[in-house]
Amino acid sequence: MLIGSQTWEFRNKPVIIGAATVVGPEEGEGPLASDFDFTYDNLEINEKTWEKAERKLLEHAASLALVHANISKDELSFFIGGDLMNQIISATFAARQLMTPYIGIFGACSTSMESLALASFIVDAGGANYVLAGTASHNCTAEKQFRYPTEYGSQKPPTAQYTVTGAGCGVVTSTGSGPRVTHATIGKIQDLGVTDPFNMGAAMAPAAADTIVTHFKDTGRSPADYDLIVTGDLATVGHEIVSDLLKRDGVDMNLTEFKDCGLMVYDLENQPFVIAGGSGCGCSAVVTYGHILKKLKNKELRRVLIVATGALLSPLSFQQGESIPCIAHGVVLESE
Amino acid sequence: MLIGSQTWEFRNKPVIIGAATVVGPEEGEGPLASDFDFTYDNLEINEKTWEKAERKLLEHAASLALVHANISKDELSFFIGGDLMNQIISATFAARQLMTPYIGIFGACSTSMESLALASFIVDAGGANYVLAGTASHNCTAEKQFRYPTEYGSQKPPTAQYTVTGAGCGVVTSTGSGPRVTHATIGKIQDLGVTDPFNMGAAMAPAAADTIVTHFKDTGRSPADYDLIVTGDLATVGHEIVSDLLKRDGVDMNLTEFKDCGLMVYDLENQPFVIAGGSGCGCSAVVTYGHILKKLKNKELRRVLIVATGALLSPLSFQQGESIPCIAHGVVLESE
Repeated sequence: MLIGSQTWEFRNKPVIIGAATVVGPEEGEGPLASDFDFTYDNLEINEKTWEKAERKLLEHAASLALVHANISKDELSFFIGGDLMNQIISATFAARQLMTPYIGIFGACSTSMESLALASFIVDAGGANYVLAGTASHNCTAEKQFRYPTEYGSQKPPTAQYTVTGAGCGVVTSTGSGPRVTHATIGKIQDLGVTDPFNMGAAMAPAAADTIVTHFKDTGRSPADYDLIVTGDLATVGHEIVSDLLKRDGVDMNLTEFKDCGLMVYDLENQPFVIAGGSGCGCSAVVTYGHILKKLKNKELRRVLIVATGALLSPLSFQQGESIPCIAHGVVLESE
Repeated sequence: MLIGSQTWEFRNKPVIIGAATVVGPEEGEGPLASDFDFTYDNLEINEKTWEKAERKLLEHAASLALVHANISKDELSFFIGGDLMNQIISATFAARQLMTPYIGIFGACSTSMESLALASFIVDAGGANYVLAGTASHNCTAEKQFRYPTEYGSQKPPTAQYTVTGAGCGVVTSTGSGPRVTHATIGKIQDLGVTDPFNMGAAMAPAAADTIVTHFKDTGRSPADYDLIVTGDLATVGHEIVSDLLKRDGVDMNLTEFKDCGLMVYDLENQPFVIAGGSGCGCSAVVTYGHILKKLKNKELRRVLIVATGALLSPLSFQQGESIPCIAHGVVLESE
């Protein structure tokens, strides 16, 4: 049910009974390598196009999540997913393979938490038995569609981020064993006029700050109530800005661990090609469903707020001189 | 709550307390002209790009829907919307203007009922006070993105459809006066291998048939329980196919009025440029929120099943030789 202005409190605390992450070779060499279920050793993911590669990541993660949840795809009430591709073709073609009722969404890199928030709401309210939430991104599909094909070898500024090649999926249901989803805060569009698609972190930071502040207001909580607060893919530039914005808003983030999935998924020193850090739909998805979920399961973490950020531009809106509208959706996970 | 395999029954029957439709000049010369709230006399919608024109249609319909609902935008809990544009920029930029928490979705031309189904579910379960659901399409943005820019003057086959220039929005809440939303059936992807983007009706017909059959199975109802069953945008080719498919499945559609929004919005004889009929996100949206809602209000209709169909291809998936995955989401509206 709604508490405050834009937060859902899940009375029955839906549970993530199974989850899975599948990544590409570069993520498989990053600091979280051991948290992922499967690592492909080639960026082509053994497919003939980048788009088919991205789709395969999602289909692979979805099928592994079902195995980990110990259910068949016929038991799924719905698949809720989306991705960065035009007309979210990765999620749609994965839904075709799953043959399950499908709710397509678009939140760019916030899709991971938008889908988990909706899945949890629907399960909590008795609208589904099992819901699969998931998303994927691929470095080369994103570069090709939003910037320049990697094959062109164009240079990038130091604010640029590196789209994660990976997919993360979770199965949400009402009973069973696993981390619980207790709250979700749906974000508002924030647009402070950033027009540079090579500086997504700066564009998205105000959305993350707004959702974090709203979450605390709606729930009556503060940073100290969480073991970890993690933003989606702000990377070095954006994470510094969101920290500044929160300080200005009087939120003392020193009371908790405050991280960013884009800074966790790669080793910036030894993987310098990621420049400012990771991004993409898969970024917060693989960190959440891989790394964070494992730490909640073994009780290293007790309560986490994940705020996935999305830059909702299109190449065309950018070409027409529009600034970048951004959003952030927050979800709270608790250990059992 | 979930009944059967993929249908939600709304126990508190959320109400559409206000709705609005805004259309372009061609829709304003069609048979439903008097049902629309505002008709622009120019296809440019007084804007400098087609994309800005599409966005303006949605922003205009959203603001009129709020006026008709007699609420301010600050009272909205969420805006749930999407459109056909890459990265759903029309809905996102409208959300930026509304400054309301935003759930972006993508269902191509099924977006109208996907958004209304989600809005009704969330309101019914106490997750929102007021939710705005809406979508828009523009003939020239769709032609430019999915086929050829209109300015090229390319020819079309007789199966081609004409994207509606228009937007439709509704405000859903738990109490008040207006038509009620009682059920929603979330569709599964159907893909029978059609690869021709100039024959969307044939591609989408199996999805419409599947959702209609599932709706009857889940609810225990039959066509005779409805005054009107209407598909989204199958037009002449697709509507004939869905009728055949339903007959083969043993569903006697002669027991009720069975129409298609794509055949209702234009006069195919006097507007021959629409070829097989209307399509696009705006098609089922303007027919539902304009025409059908008015007939429910004045009790000419008592119970209607609207099955909005979506062809979830992207230009790129088509260019890579993929067939067209399709979906249909159904929503039941009842007069008070």
